[in-house]
Amino acid sequence: MVREGRIGAREVAEHAGCSVSAVSLVVNGKDTGRISAELRERVLAAVTELGYRPNRSARSLVTGDSGTVCAVLPDPANPFFGDVLAGLGTALGDEHTLALVLPTSGTDYDARTVLRAYSLDPAGVVLISPGEPVLRDLVPRCPTLVVDAPGRTPALPRVDLDTVAAGELISDHLTALGHRGFGYIGPTSDKPTFRTRRRAFLDRVADADVLRTLDLPGWDPLAAAVTMASVLPEWLDSGVTAVVCADDLLAYGVLAALDRLGRGEVAVVGMGDLPFSQLCRPALTSVDFAGRRAGEVAGRSLLSWIGTGERPRRTRVPANLVVRASTRGG
Amino acid sequence: MVREGRIGAREVAEHAGCSVSAVSLVVNGKDTGRISAELRERVLAAVTELGYRPNRSARSLVTGDSGTVCAVLPDPANPFFGDVLAGLGTALGDEHTLALVLPTSGTDYDARTVLRAYSLDPAGVVLISPGEPVLRDLVPRCPTLVVDAPGRTPALPRVDLDTVAAGELISDHLTALGHRGFGYIGPTSDKPTFRTRRRAFLDRVADADVLRTLDLPGWDPLAAAVTMASVLPEWLDSGVTAVVCADDLLAYGVLAALDRLGRGEVAVVGMGDLPFSQLCRPALTSVDFAGRRAGEVAGRSLLSWIGTGERPRRTRVPANLVVRASTRGG
Repeated sequence: MVREGRIGAREVAEHAGCSVSAVSLVVNGKDTGRISAELRERVLAAVTELGYRPNRSARSLVTGDSGTVCAVLPDPANPFFGDVLAGLGTALGDEHTLALVLPTSGTDYDARTVLRAYSLDPAGVVLISPGEPVLRDLVPRCPTLVVDAPGRTPALPRVDLDTVAAGELISDHLTALGHRGFGYIGPTSDKPTFRTRRRAFLDRVADADVLRTLDLPGWDPLAAAVTMASVLPEWLDSGVTAVVCADDLLAYGVLAALDRLGRGEVAVVGMGDLPFSQLCRPALTSVDFAGRRAGEVAGRSLLSWIGTGERPRRTRVPANLVVRASTRGG
Repeated sequence: MVREGRIGAREVAEHAGCSVSAVSLVVNGKDTGRISAELRERVLAAVTELGYRPNRSARSLVTGDSGTVCAVLPDPANPFFGDVLAGLGTALGDEHTLALVLPTSGTDYDARTVLRAYSLDPAGVVLISPGEPVLRDLVPRCPTLVVDAPGRTPALPRVDLDTVAAGELISDHLTALGHRGFGYIGPTSDKPTFRTRRRAFLDRVADADVLRTLDLPGWDPLAAAVTMASVLPEWLDSGVTAVVCADDLLAYGVLAALDRLGRGEVAVVGMGDLPFSQLCRPALTSVDFAGRRAGEVAGRSLLSWIGTGERPRRTRVPANLVVRASTRGG
């Protein structure tokens, strides 16, 4: 393992016969269009030969900007968070590094996970879909922005998904199709984002003929399918003709259960518009929250805050109902 | 925005009436079971009151271990990479931070992206599914491990997916079902992982009655469906009865095209076993590469390398064929 020893950018520059700033451009990957390919090769050869390791820590002590933005999120394997991360990465470009801070156990993060993010001395922090306790205990130590936590968040800049519009778009769509009996399936999680999704929809259909709700403990579509296969018969007998889910993963389970019951005519709507929703059969009507866009907006706002010291305004990323076969009678 | 000023851990300790090491434990999120909840609260109150920001940079200069592990990958929105990241995060725990370095343009990373990772002064680097040019130009500056780049990689420790077994498992399965005419669909990308997937399968069915291959430029299932709707008729007329895809995303497109052509009896196999493969109709037979497991193995190997200075051995994570309806006649 190569250690820094006494080799600095100055030694590399002398060895390569160039300026220290040329070395800096190359090792920070910012030389495009600024120095020749030949010089770049020479610098890289000198870097390798001398075993030089550029020292970002030293730079950070001088400039006060560690160049790191921490994203704290529940699970990178969830496609929605993957989208937000991709958007964040695009916005941060190559001036800032995107550090992930994940829960080390369980399926969600807590106040301790957030402390871990601050201990990295980041230039900024993005909290993605935080739970209520995280927000309650939060002591921001640098520019900190919250993505997807609608409601009474502490006074932090936020990028909201339009979870209120989601409920309205869905209820308007289903009502226009003549539905008067609804089922709503959400997670047992009481995160602000899911509380808002539920309330926005239920408020809007308060005068429906039939209304059923169910909380499921996890996100696994197959587990949801098994539960729903035993719950749906009573719902359908009582007059439910449309089932709305707080997340597409739950909706996939509902579609599978309805298929098994031979009740493909029941309308199903999801939220999140995951990539598979256009591929499943029937294709799933869903609300697109534009996660990648939310990540980009969050990244740009945070960089501006870090750069200017001015807190960004709250932003809401528009949501969009994508109508597919699952609300057209299978 | 809070700046560090002159406030250090010593000032916080004085203010809270405790030791500097207690402050260190709390701000690094490592106090569980070591100090009382009451002391923790006092430290946090002092941190907030004094505006203390723990300085990781200074620590890094002293210990020489920046505590950061960089993962370089093409796209966090791809569910396979999300799985690998989740596994890496689990393995790294809270002692090391997982930094993501992503391509700032285009859909894949290059040597410049890797340089950017090294410029962060990481304790270790994981290159996930790198292309050939990245490996050719690589000058490792710290423990560097490669995930999913089978073949003649430079002398770096690797965690391989079992892409060779994938071709064998699939050909054996299809041959046992009586298939003698095969189509293979891969990406135009010549990444080692895709070259190996293709060769392992094609070598194994070299004596088939009919063999067709096609390269598609992207991963979008709907685009694949459109292309395949015009390609498949000729393939099927010539005797192709089973279509193998280098990735599940392409297989979803093939399933959609076959459905439109009313040829649901044609066998389809994917690779990667994405979550949706158990939900699509017909459910997709696919090779599970165990991406999360690969990420965990990579993380543990890298930590051991960083800690002991001993290079880990090459590891191969076993692959597994998950047989579903798409090879059972729809």
